Amino acid sequence: TPAMEHIDILCGKYGEDERLIYRLEKRGDKKNPEELGMRYDLTVPLARVIAMNPTIVFPFKRYQIQPAWRAERPQKGRYREFIQCDIDIIGSDSTLADCEIIAVTNEALSAIGFSKFKIMLNHRKILKGIADYAGIGVDKFTSMCAAIDKFDKIGFDGVLEELGKRGFDKKQIQKVMEVVKLEGDFESKIAFLSRIFKDSNDSLFGIGQIQEINQNLEYLGIPRGRVEFSIMLSRGLDYYTGPIYESIVEEPKIGSLSGGGRYDKLIGVFSGKEIPATGSSFGLERIFDVYEEITSEKAPVQSTDVLVLNFTDELTFKALELLKDLRAGNIKSDIYYNSKKDLRTQLAYASKKNIPFALIIGPDEIKDDKVIIKNLLKREQSIIPVTELIPSLRKMIGENARTSP
Amino acid sequence: TPAMEHIDILCGKYGEDERLIYRLEKRGDKKNPEELGMRYDLTVPLARVIAMNPTIVFPFKRYQIQPAWRAERPQKGRYREFIQCDIDIIGSDSTLADCEIIAVTNEALSAIGFSKFKIMLNHRKILKGIADYAGIGVDKFTSMCAAIDKFDKIGFDGVLEELGKRGFDKKQIQKVMEVVKLEGDFESKIAFLSRIFKDSNDSLFGIGQIQEINQNLEYLGIPRGRVEFSIMLSRGLDYYTGPIYESIVEEPKIGSLSGGGRYDKLIGVFSGKEIPATGSSFGLERIFDVYEEITSEKAPVQSTDVLVLNFTDELTFKALELLKDLRAGNIKSDIYYNSKKDLRTQLAYASKKNIPFALIIGPDEIKDDKVIIKNLLKREQSIIPVTELIPSLRKMIGENARTSP
Repeated sequence: TPAMEHIDILCGKYGEDERLIYRLEKRGDKKNPEELGMRYDLTVPLARVIAMNPTIVFPFKRYQIQPAWRAERPQKGRYREFIQCDIDIIGSDSTLADCEIIAVTNEALSAIGFSKFKIMLNHRKILKGIADYAGIGVDKFTSMCAAIDKFDKIGFDGVLEELGKRGFDKKQIQKVMEVVKLEGDFESKIAFLSRIFKDSNDSLFGIGQIQEINQNLEYLGIPRGRVEFSIMLSRGLDYYTGPIYESIVEEPKIGSLSGGGRYDKLIGVFSGKEIPATGSSFGLERIFDVYEEITSEKAPVQSTDVLVLNFTDELTFKALELLKDLRAGNIKSDIYYNSKKDLRTQLAYASKKNIPFALIIGPDEIKDDKVIIKNLLKREQSIIPVTELIPSLRKMIGENARTSP
Repeated sequence: TPAMEHIDILCGKYGEDERLIYRLEKRGDKKNPEELGMRYDLTVPLARVIAMNPTIVFPFKRYQIQPAWRAERPQKGRYREFIQCDIDIIGSDSTLADCEIIAVTNEALSAIGFSKFKIMLNHRKILKGIADYAGIGVDKFTSMCAAIDKFDKIGFDGVLEELGKRGFDKKQIQKVMEVVKLEGDFESKIAFLSRIFKDSNDSLFGIGQIQEINQNLEYLGIPRGRVEFSIMLSRGLDYYTGPIYESIVEEPKIGSLSGGGRYDKLIGVFSGKEIPATGSSFGLERIFDVYEEITSEKAPVQSTDVLVLNFTDELTFKALELLKDLRAGNIKSDIYYNSKKDLRTQLAYASKKNIPFALIIGPDEIKDDKVIIKNLLKREQSIIPVTELIPSLRKMIGENARTSP
């Protein structure tokens, strides 16, 4: 999807965070200027594209890896420009679609090598049921969600205080806390909620979907304990309508690595025709941060294996011919450009760039059709015929790779 | 590099085209707001990064593939958001660096499969020499370049007219046209220019560099005739200082596929310390357009091989288990979500999505531990034991791939 969208496409989708959308200066016709904003996530533009393409066969699955922009105060794990990796399934209201998104989340994080992570699962209709139970109206629903979503960070007493600050009354707070303090396994949580939701078909529907998902994830082979039903999970964005999910690593504490949920109404906002959809977004930078922390492994640096030294201006042509042959032989090689510099300076450059081999071809070597190979790590040198250069170098580079740390 | 740069970084680098920079609405402190613009090319942000990182060891080579944005009127081969692929060599004033950029251009376009392309080569100091020869001052230098750069499109008479429109006088036009109409091979063009530039060391230096490049490209194995010295090539951007180059395909006519040159002053604008640099940028969309036109080959569509049908709600668990095993066996497979739909509808969906195989596992099959495989292309079906499912499917998918168009 394009980096820029018409501002109308972006507005009214992200709740309070809408103020973080980067807007472009108006352009074009003064009476009817073009107002654009920067892509804030990949979900809203996807919904627009689906709405504009009525011939797509549903269910439609796609992935997308692109940057998004938010005018945040930058900090570890939170950047103004960041890469989102999205997976979505459009055109099905089946919880099997939600299960597949959760299964991909599990597969992807496992494939990277993470093992200590959990996928938290909740349902918007369960949150709605809690609000109903506590006598909290639509106007304060989001505020309640925001308060209980902080439980992980601020604990029981923190949520109690937060609810007070947000102006909920004593009876409301008491009822919300009754749910927040709920302990026990999946079955006992479900039993409690079924009891308090007994008069709301909508909330009972939410519970039913969570049970379905929980059951089907087992058939899909998701390890037991990987997915956890979390009544407190709320996800910030306005557009979720059903199951919501988030993956978190237990160590290091960095917030969520991925998050998503079902958004059955969003596409309809653009086309007038409701099309159910569910999906999740991974934050690439956070995954990198966690990866580096748990493996202490840095991405390998692509480096040059051979530097062809530039003996004199008159012999540059010979160095270039050598370089051409090395590269044609798939040996990562470079030439020192400045023939005015002495060989000592050229070798020092090779060391600084961690290039392990240097080739010298001077007048004597040209006469004998030979090349000097310097192994800068072993401080050895050998003279070999030009015809044997490539196989010899391949062997040396291979040996070097095996003995390097 | 980030998509957004401080507007000061971008301004004063792109000549007239500066008006095409997308600007963001000011944010933050009202007295001292943050003014940002969208990345217009990859070169200026690179220069800023180099200026900010004084520990980089030179020469430094890098490639970068990222989008840039220009508020253009969109048309074939010209888009508001487009992907640039840049290669640059920083920290050397040697023409060997320019040669390497040209060599990469040749390699890259050849590797894609293009054969009918040329790399046009010129030098800013030669253009300057032509202006001096015609008595054209610094103020009208860019205007002269813009006029003669159109020669390919509008021909001899067109350039003549264009120069008139741009307000050059008769004598100036006559002298410019003397150069434009210059025919003959590389050597004869060089001889002519050397004669008219005899009093300008600067322009003679430009000619010398073109000769060096021409010579060294041969040693690097660039096919003869691939690189063409073109006195008319001028490149629009303000920041070029030395050799400039552009690649064009002869068919289809779509303008240049890549363009670049030496920009020895640009980094100094940011750091105060001049660092020579040269590089080129490929336009990914244009390369795609040309590729599709000359090969008439579309990118292959990644498709699903197997659809597991969803027999009934009670048996969904069996379909999910099968799906899990197929995916674990690296067979691209999907499940039909809605168990309420009859099998005919589910099979129609498989056909619409071009999925060649469908699996059915109903109560009879479960009892016998077997699966029905439907080959939707051959309209055949077979019943096989679950234990043989994956090897059988692999074989069928392989056969199908061999016989498909």
